[in-house]
Amino acid sequence: MNRRMIARLIAYTLIIEVIAMLPALGISLAHQESDSVRGFLLSIGIILACCALLLLFRPRSKTFYAGEGFVTTALSWIIISLFGALPLWLSGAVANPVDCFFEIVSGFTTTGASVLSDVESLPRGILYWRSFTNWLGGMGVLVFLLAITSTQKKGEGSSLHLLRAESPGPIVGKLMPKLKQTAVILYAIYLVMSLLELIFLLAGGMPLFDSFCTVFATAGTGGVCIKNDSMMSYSPYLQTVVGIFMALFGVNFSIFYLLLTRQFARALFDEEVRAYLAVMAVSVLLITLNILPLYHTFGEALQHSFFQVASIITTTGYVTADYGLWPGFSQTILLLLMAIGACAGSTGGGYKISRLLISFKSVKKEISRMLHPRAVKAVHMNGKTLDNTVTKGVSVYTTVYCAIILLSFLLISLDNQGILTNITAVLSCTNNVGPGMDAVGPSGNYNVFSNFGKIILALDMLLGRLEFFPMLILMMPSTWKRKSLH
Amino acid sequence: MNRRMIARLIAYTLIIEVIAMLPALGISLAHQESDSVRGFLLSIGIILACCALLLLFRPRSKTFYAGEGFVTTALSWIIISLFGALPLWLSGAVANPVDCFFEIVSGFTTTGASVLSDVESLPRGILYWRSFTNWLGGMGVLVFLLAITSTQKKGEGSSLHLLRAESPGPIVGKLMPKLKQTAVILYAIYLVMSLLELIFLLAGGMPLFDSFCTVFATAGTGGVCIKNDSMMSYSPYLQTVVGIFMALFGVNFSIFYLLLTRQFARALFDEEVRAYLAVMAVSVLLITLNILPLYHTFGEALQHSFFQVASIITTTGYVTADYGLWPGFSQTILLLLMAIGACAGSTGGGYKISRLLISFKSVKKEISRMLHPRAVKAVHMNGKTLDNTVTKGVSVYTTVYCAIILLSFLLISLDNQGILTNITAVLSCTNNVGPGMDAVGPSGNYNVFSNFGKIILALDMLLGRLEFFPMLILMMPSTWKRKSLH
Repeated sequence: MNRRMIARLIAYTLIIEVIAMLPALGISLAHQESDSVRGFLLSIGIILACCALLLLFRPRSKTFYAGEGFVTTALSWIIISLFGALPLWLSGAVANPVDCFFEIVSGFTTTGASVLSDVESLPRGILYWRSFTNWLGGMGVLVFLLAITSTQKKGEGSSLHLLRAESPGPIVGKLMPKLKQTAVILYAIYLVMSLLELIFLLAGGMPLFDSFCTVFATAGTGGVCIKNDSMMSYSPYLQTVVGIFMALFGVNFSIFYLLLTRQFARALFDEEVRAYLAVMAVSVLLITLNILPLYHTFGEALQHSFFQVASIITTTGYVTADYGLWPGFSQTILLLLMAIGACAGSTGGGYKISRLLISFKSVKKEISRMLHPRAVKAVHMNGKTLDNTVTKGVSVYTTVYCAIILLSFLLISLDNQGILTNITAVLSCTNNVGPGMDAVGPSGNYNVFSNFGKIILALDMLLGRLEFFPMLILMMPSTWKRKSLH
Repeated sequence: MNRRMIARLIAYTLIIEVIAMLPALGISLAHQESDSVRGFLLSIGIILACCALLLLFRPRSKTFYAGEGFVTTALSWIIISLFGALPLWLSGAVANPVDCFFEIVSGFTTTGASVLSDVESLPRGILYWRSFTNWLGGMGVLVFLLAITSTQKKGEGSSLHLLRAESPGPIVGKLMPKLKQTAVILYAIYLVMSLLELIFLLAGGMPLFDSFCTVFATAGTGGVCIKNDSMMSYSPYLQTVVGIFMALFGVNFSIFYLLLTRQFARALFDEEVRAYLAVMAVSVLLITLNILPLYHTFGEALQHSFFQVASIITTTGYVTADYGLWPGFSQTILLLLMAIGACAGSTGGGYKISRLLISFKSVKKEISRMLHPRAVKAVHMNGKTLDNTVTKGVSVYTTVYCAIILLSFLLISLDNQGILTNITAVLSCTNNVGPGMDAVGPSGNYNVFSNFGKIILALDMLLGRLEFFPMLILMMPSTWKRKSLH
């Protein structure tokens, strides 16, 4: 393990975090929130001091294998969450340090789950920071690092390992020959779409501050709220704009790149996007019909159905209606969407539509193998044959996904909440959705859990955001064996 | 598809069913239950008539591939369940034909779930038949067919395909060179262990009729009850005997064969059995400590903890305590055990301990592949290298398992029961356990569901008992394409 190199990359990530805190500091200053200003200044001081310490270790070698990539990614995310929680704690805005950590992990992992019952009472600077972590975490902090640093010097190897470890989905592709270019394009698309949403929100009369925070939370499919009632009190126009943008941010970003470069056929025939839109359309239709008796008009039912479906499948977690009051069938559809999640290569979390497709194709192949043991068949996706390591990887991912969810479910049951609360809390946090059901439903929050439960759920968010393996590899004792030191 | 051969094998299976009904008919006669006698006689008449019809088609070829094996198995189980439900309906003991089907599917698949709130009011002959289906379904009807028919004539091919399709677990091994011998030995062990339990129960003062029915339900790990309160009203001695035998019937039967043939080392170092015992021991200990405040003595808590753990992990489903009143942590452990199930090659259902082991080993291998892409590693079990098709098969099985559970969960949510009721009902039925939680917990029953819900759950039981693929292959349109006719 090249620890010095890892330390250096973490230091760079911390510098990005400090820069990301500056606008929040500015807002605190502008609103004369002295506690927040103190909180941010202290935090920035502490982070920079740690950075300086980390930078003392000069890497002796450039060796950077997959292991280093996973460890760097996992450690970076834990460390930026810990340091990112400092302003909340040092400003006195949130008293319990575990709550601060939970909120910021929830932000960076784009979960949007909260332990706070009255977010509106938080200072503006803190609210802004909490929302901005959604935006930064959505596309990934290390992808950002790749986008702004020259990768020529360090070699493509380290960058690819970092990108692989941080980017969601079963297949990490490069849009351009150079990874740096890929990262730049991803962030450019992200920025442009965010700006577009901002314009639409401002045009609908949403206040500037609200608009920025809402864009951050939509773009990152995070759903961190600045209102106690999530999106319920905004106008139907604003709700619909947010709904459409949530759905867009759940699309694989490579599709936008294909559209920009006028490769319309490839974009339109992408199997994952078609499946994503089909699942969404069917879910919206079924739920609309199911909840029709609860609303005045078909339009109103459709609007709420679309918003909730888009919010849950993209793992954003905003709500415009308390779906806890909907019939069981609608709730069950939402629960299943929670587990499925959005497209790979989007800012959305969850199991991912592409994994679902690959899993079904693997099952079909297995049945055919059972019937005709000698026939050799391959799994295809978008016209290409999938490598065996991809299908095998998806199968193992499914196992890990189930195992982590069941283990966390067991651990948080020590808190003695209801079983439905526990299982939906774990599902929602691991898939980076936000709200669950029962006590953690749209009208509740995660404060029902003890510090122990909150830490387990925060770890689930990190595990889910990084798709398990980086965190698991970080936690394996063999990763830290002396013999692999450089 | 060699339809004539399939028809013949189904006819044989029906003859076994008629023979299996005779003791129940005798009991009805002895107790002068005229409705039951009429029910059984009419049913036997109908079944024999259908048999005669099926036997009219003489097979033109002996072609019998894996496809035929799966289809025969799936169809046999559906047909014996339909015909097995006839006595309940024709005797008037159970009025709703869907309820009759549910009860008998629950019996044959060794689930033990019931829609009846007052089983004690059923005639004795019917009670006996319901319990006996547990015993017959536990080891498998087609395995029984193999045991009693000469396989020389039909060739080993067809037998192996049938055994593979009906026997649970990721690897179906032969104990003896000849399949017929394997089937005979399996049934011999089954019979001897059943007799042993019968002796222990009679020695504890259980009435003869109760003893027989309890043995059937324990041996098949079915848990069909003849008392409204399951096992609650029996003495602690009887409960403990049943608990120990449930645990024994959850062990891979090849272990008993190894012990009988004095291969102690191989038996004791079997990884699956060790894991099974370890999971059971840890669960019993954790639950005992968790429920201690609810009971007078440590011994009482331990006894209830052991019984419930043994009952749920072996997927029997008997209860001596209403675990719905236990703390959430204990309930969560039971819920997880429900999903795991017993050893492969036992009469228990569920995902199976061996699959759990293979899954974890596959995950370890995948992580190692991620870190060292060029290193080739294999998965080992009991000192042997596992074939890639086995590990791949287990991964795909996991996917199918999750998909079936989630799909059924969605379908039965149309019944508008609570989410916890729905998910535990599906888990319990698919894993052939019996009781679930909430409305289908130890103090409730499955009558809360509509006919539609009951049929979905009955299909889940069949899907789970046959480990999904036979039923899925039966339902695939391509299986029935004209071109593959013989």
